[in-house]
Amino acid sequence: MVIKERYNVAVVGATGAVGQKMIETLEKRDFPVGELRLLASPRSVGQQVMFKGQTYKVEEARPEAFEGIDFALFAAGGSISEKLAPEAVERGAVVIDNTSVFRMVPEVPLVVPEVNPHAISQHQGIIANPNCSTIQMVVALKPLYDAYGIERIIVSTYQAVSGAGQKGVDDLLDQTRAVLNGEEVVGTHLPVGSQPKKHQMAFNAIPQIDVFEENGFSKEEMKMVNETRKIFGDQEIQVTPTAVRIPVLFGHAEAVYIETEKSFDLEEVRQLLEQAPGITVLDNLKEQEYPMPAMAEGTHDVYVGRIRRDLFHPRGLNLWVVSDNVLKGAAWNAVQIAEYMVKSK
Amino acid sequence: MVIKERYNVAVVGATGAVGQKMIETLEKRDFPVGELRLLASPRSVGQQVMFKGQTYKVEEARPEAFEGIDFALFAAGGSISEKLAPEAVERGAVVIDNTSVFRMVPEVPLVVPEVNPHAISQHQGIIANPNCSTIQMVVALKPLYDAYGIERIIVSTYQAVSGAGQKGVDDLLDQTRAVLNGEEVVGTHLPVGSQPKKHQMAFNAIPQIDVFEENGFSKEEMKMVNETRKIFGDQEIQVTPTAVRIPVLFGHAEAVYIETEKSFDLEEVRQLLEQAPGITVLDNLKEQEYPMPAMAEGTHDVYVGRIRRDLFHPRGLNLWVVSDNVLKGAAWNAVQIAEYMVKSK
Repeated sequence: MVIKERYNVAVVGATGAVGQKMIETLEKRDFPVGELRLLASPRSVGQQVMFKGQTYKVEEARPEAFEGIDFALFAAGGSISEKLAPEAVERGAVVIDNTSVFRMVPEVPLVVPEVNPHAISQHQGIIANPNCSTIQMVVALKPLYDAYGIERIIVSTYQAVSGAGQKGVDDLLDQTRAVLNGEEVVGTHLPVGSQPKKHQMAFNAIPQIDVFEENGFSKEEMKMVNETRKIFGDQEIQVTPTAVRIPVLFGHAEAVYIETEKSFDLEEVRQLLEQAPGITVLDNLKEQEYPMPAMAEGTHDVYVGRIRRDLFHPRGLNLWVVSDNVLKGAAWNAVQIAEYMVKSK
Repeated sequence: MVIKERYNVAVVGATGAVGQKMIETLEKRDFPVGELRLLASPRSVGQQVMFKGQTYKVEEARPEAFEGIDFALFAAGGSISEKLAPEAVERGAVVIDNTSVFRMVPEVPLVVPEVNPHAISQHQGIIANPNCSTIQMVVALKPLYDAYGIERIIVSTYQAVSGAGQKGVDDLLDQTRAVLNGEEVVGTHLPVGSQPKKHQMAFNAIPQIDVFEENGFSKEEMKMVNETRKIFGDQEIQVTPTAVRIPVLFGHAEAVYIETEKSFDLEEVRQLLEQAPGITVLDNLKEQEYPMPAMAEGTHDVYVGRIRRDLFHPRGLNLWVVSDNVLKGAAWNAVQIAEYMVKSK
């Protein structure tokens, strides 16, 4: 990528939940945007979106729309990325893709800037943004991985409905109103838009995110297994995930248990986490201080608390990790990759 | 206890969330109640409660109220149990106590009828009902413990606000209305009634249930550690818990990972769970069938699903366990103990 004053940026899926946050994040971070091109499917064409006080019209996402683009941020679903990302690359753009289609392709770097920024430079046009629940976990674990090594991870997630897009948010809000009004609860989207059964999400917990694989784990869970290994570049890490959707709008939480390779000092663990980029430690039990989704919403950091040594395993450590799934888990991580590329030139 | 046609039953804390469910459960199960005495604090005296079509007036819980009582079910808080349970025992009653005060007293049996019914006969007047999150976990693990032994448990809970009583339920409902109406959210009770800070519970997850101990674990978490060992009569089981409150009204869920002593066959695990008393297996991933709090509410069973072998540990097994925390986790388990004593005479 040539050094420039300003970069032409396309956002694909500009009217979706993540696309909107990408545009907001570009503005908030004052990313050096030259031309901004907002792309979406034909039914969204003509919609208006504000960016830095100016109105932009949404255009159709088609190959020609990537002419002259430097960064193409994709958040429009796997099939769109599969079709259009190569077209954008062919026209000279760097694609930062938020879908899962390219994540496990060996030549595509899977990047969390706090963890493996070095992978960015190996890109061949496409850089993949990991899954939201993976991103916040690996940010929290990175300083501990570097200091002690990590043998295994057992993680239970508490995931917000915004992970299923605006339709997930609307489904929870509609259902919650119905429960409070004593009306019948009719699910319209959750747990999985593409799946036939809709379950009650209001005042409920659903142990399904994405479809299930033959081994009994969901795709969301397998992403945490496979992406964690790829991001750390370590095929030995053992990850045991349970991914659960709860009635939260924004912000994923994770109860993370790890076993380190070397023994650790708990005070040092705390210091390493406090000093690590992208992490805010909130862990003052006497003051009832710990991370929660409601306080993480709208922020960029990964919050870590409930840091405690296991009662039995000498190298066992427990953490509670919270982050805004749509920002650090998606939009901010994507913009952050672009920032990194711009700054490191 | 002498065999009788009917037994005089006192419910202490008759106007509370668990007390109410105890009365309902006694009626639903057609427990052979002779006289029913509903006891509570002075401020609830005179309130009326229905039982089998008759109206009962709430009386003050004081020592004399236990004269002639066969079973005294306590659900009025630790200090009341501490003061009045010995008085009830002195007057010849068997106390089944839902608070935590006697649970770890060596002479007091801590009983889940599906797991350690033999402990009941060792009582010296008081039988303790375990903590809700412990009960449903040990019911699910009992058949596996018997078949394979259990070395360790790593569990993350998804707990309903009714575990904090009616005030917890009201707090969540009020807050949820406020969020939907765009009003300021003011917490009044959660996460812990006795603690100064109140956090947002609506659309949030709070990693605190009860107060914290010096080791960084909460009392709720330590109950799962200590009570599990006592109920199984096995001081070697290692439990690593994270207890989290989520915006659910009734029904706790738990992501449970275990390592067995002997190796297991997954199909046999399924069969053992299906045949075990008190357990309903709901585990058909193709049909998106798994346990959820909303469907467990109002029922007596412990539901188990997401049964899957760990991807890495040869003796690692994952389960998702759901039950109504106020019923099997409290009221039903207490009445069940009384039923067991009546039937086994």
